[in-house]
Amino acid sequence: MGKRLMFEKPLGMRDTLPFFYNQKAKARKQLSDAILSYGYSFMDTPLMEYHETVGKVSATLDQQLFKLLDQQGHTLVLRPDMTAPIARVAASQLKNSEFPLRLAYEGPVFRAQQTEGGKPAQFEQVGTELIGDHSSYGDAEVIALLVESLKNAGLNDFVITVGHIGFVKAFFRDVLGEDEETIETLLQFLYRKNYVGYREAVKALPISEDKQTALLQLLTLRGGEEVFEAGRSLARNQTCMQAVNELKQLYRLLKEYGVEQSIYFDLNLISHMDYYTGVLFEGYAPNLGALLCNGGRYDTLLPSFQLNASATGFAVHLERLVEALNVQEDEDQRIGIIVDNDSYARGIKQAKNKRAEGYAVLLQHRDQIADVEAFRSQLSETIDLTNEGGAKG
Amino acid sequence: MGKRLMFEKPLGMRDTLPFFYNQKAKARKQLSDAILSYGYSFMDTPLMEYHETVGKVSATLDQQLFKLLDQQGHTLVLRPDMTAPIARVAASQLKNSEFPLRLAYEGPVFRAQQTEGGKPAQFEQVGTELIGDHSSYGDAEVIALLVESLKNAGLNDFVITVGHIGFVKAFFRDVLGEDEETIETLLQFLYRKNYVGYREAVKALPISEDKQTALLQLLTLRGGEEVFEAGRSLARNQTCMQAVNELKQLYRLLKEYGVEQSIYFDLNLISHMDYYTGVLFEGYAPNLGALLCNGGRYDTLLPSFQLNASATGFAVHLERLVEALNVQEDEDQRIGIIVDNDSYARGIKQAKNKRAEGYAVLLQHRDQIADVEAFRSQLSETIDLTNEGGAKG
Repeated sequence: MGKRLMFEKPLGMRDTLPFFYNQKAKARKQLSDAILSYGYSFMDTPLMEYHETVGKVSATLDQQLFKLLDQQGHTLVLRPDMTAPIARVAASQLKNSEFPLRLAYEGPVFRAQQTEGGKPAQFEQVGTELIGDHSSYGDAEVIALLVESLKNAGLNDFVITVGHIGFVKAFFRDVLGEDEETIETLLQFLYRKNYVGYREAVKALPISEDKQTALLQLLTLRGGEEVFEAGRSLARNQTCMQAVNELKQLYRLLKEYGVEQSIYFDLNLISHMDYYTGVLFEGYAPNLGALLCNGGRYDTLLPSFQLNASATGFAVHLERLVEALNVQEDEDQRIGIIVDNDSYARGIKQAKNKRAEGYAVLLQHRDQIADVEAFRSQLSETIDLTNEGGAKG
Repeated sequence: MGKRLMFEKPLGMRDTLPFFYNQKAKARKQLSDAILSYGYSFMDTPLMEYHETVGKVSATLDQQLFKLLDQQGHTLVLRPDMTAPIARVAASQLKNSEFPLRLAYEGPVFRAQQTEGGKPAQFEQVGTELIGDHSSYGDAEVIALLVESLKNAGLNDFVITVGHIGFVKAFFRDVLGEDEETIETLLQFLYRKNYVGYREAVKALPISEDKQTALLQLLTLRGGEEVFEAGRSLARNQTCMQAVNELKQLYRLLKEYGVEQSIYFDLNLISHMDYYTGVLFEGYAPNLGALLCNGGRYDTLLPSFQLNASATGFAVHLERLVEALNVQEDEDQRIGIIVDNDSYARGIKQAKNKRAEGYAVLLQHRDQIADVEAFRSQLSETIDLTNEGGAKG
């Protein structure tokens, strides 16, 4: 083995040592418990898919896809998200199920990284897809479930920002007409949350001052339910009105769930460039410098698999949730029993009894321990059954 | 999207629908609970590794590796097993921990398949590594834990076949001397469990009748503790005697664990061509046409990562365990609550209460259901709060 790469991992790949593993497992279970309680069924898909099937319709830039060739010469991709594979299954093996379908998943997804020390190239998503419910009730369920899942995982301080892609797009069309290039530029600024760039771009546009003011006012449409009125007065076209009404209805339903404290509206939210088609949302935790979770309604993905259905869902970035939870203490407590040849049988019996009581018990022959004191130090309690150690150490 | 591949998956890739998903999750948890009770710590490694680091030392044929190139031009592999990646971590990030190390893992591994309808190219392993304990106590712990894990998962009918690679190799050398080519041929027949081929190959060898008889007698060294005596009289060299003594000691220790009923000895067991260096074992269930689990002692892998340690471990093929368990009934019970606009708030309250009692509750607006009767049929109980349904349906 070459010395250079001996202990190295590919760019963006990380090991998960026991402490972080346990935190992830705990958070995953708490999210899953909430999701299961809403009647969702977990499923999984392979980690590799045909590029032609899932790679092309996924929400990931081509340069971020991990690609490989199979022995038949087809291009495969490591799945960049779970939504497209689940759409494939919903539209094939599950197409005769009763809709709405409530599906859930947890597992790794992949995004190739270009730079050292950047984002992880593999991370875990826990998420849901509600397929075939095109109502605000569906939107409300998914957002309420997201809030309850995060709370169930022990996260108390977070906010879910909710927007509507239909509002932004119709507003831009209203103000800018068919100038697709400018619209695309402004959408990009919003997508990157570059509001300084957005303002400068608007001020440089050869349009009337009224229109510039309107475009700048879009940035102020953030907050509680007061943004609905403000949005209505800013954008008076039919589609924008409809989008605001949907958000208003959604808010009413979220109040029934009692989760409105965690909700914040943002009418200029662009969570993804092409994917979502209606209500969309992003979740943030204050101590986390990155997106914690996101989701929304997508109406074009399932039709691309020949299934005429609207869907909505969310995905939580599990490792970031663990970071946000910021647990410092390892609750993992193990008891050690040190034995020698004579006390081995006795040690096995004691270990068996303690395991039956629910303890994690590590039984270790004395001869294989280099440093007994150091060995003890990793355990919450040590019982030494060797002659040297006496009956109990 | 091309119609041809629209719903297809790459060769050997499978979807995991909810029923099988739930069975896997249950079996995984039961195995993990047993493993945790023995004081093992779970960890994980990335799904991709450098070929130079992990691909080359793994126990998988090169043609079975999924390879891809990263943007720096390095060859990456999808991990074909977990033992080599864990060895990498044990020899780097964990090298200053207290040994023996008890590590565990659960996750997907990959083996490229050449033919349609064959083995899965991705499957899940749940396993353990006991690193730095080179005693029979370590071998016994790993085998006892394997038995207890399988029993904890609900598998009652299985057998763990235990052998010793040192015995077979020393016996062949004793009979055949330095004829490496013949030794390799015979090892291959044993590895493939092609005993007819082995017999024919032995009979065709230009060696004395005594030697032929001895080579054929090797095949009879299977059964309970009586094989130790038979093994000793067949192979009188030092290394074989030592191997038999190790197995005898192992058997004594396994009896202390009370798992001897599940153990069967086979002195011609070759579980892998190059990997194991001492005691090795395979597990079978009668209704399963394939290996359920395997493991053994490996002494050369960690030194290849510059860590001077012996190790032993096992891996259970999770999907095959689920097949062996052969559960037909889905215990997954969901309650449905059907609401309309008027009863929505009431439905949310009822759902909340039932969820707090531990039920999985699916709340569904009537307008989004195509066929109420079909919808009800997928649920264990349905409460209809709509006007049409009355107070309770």
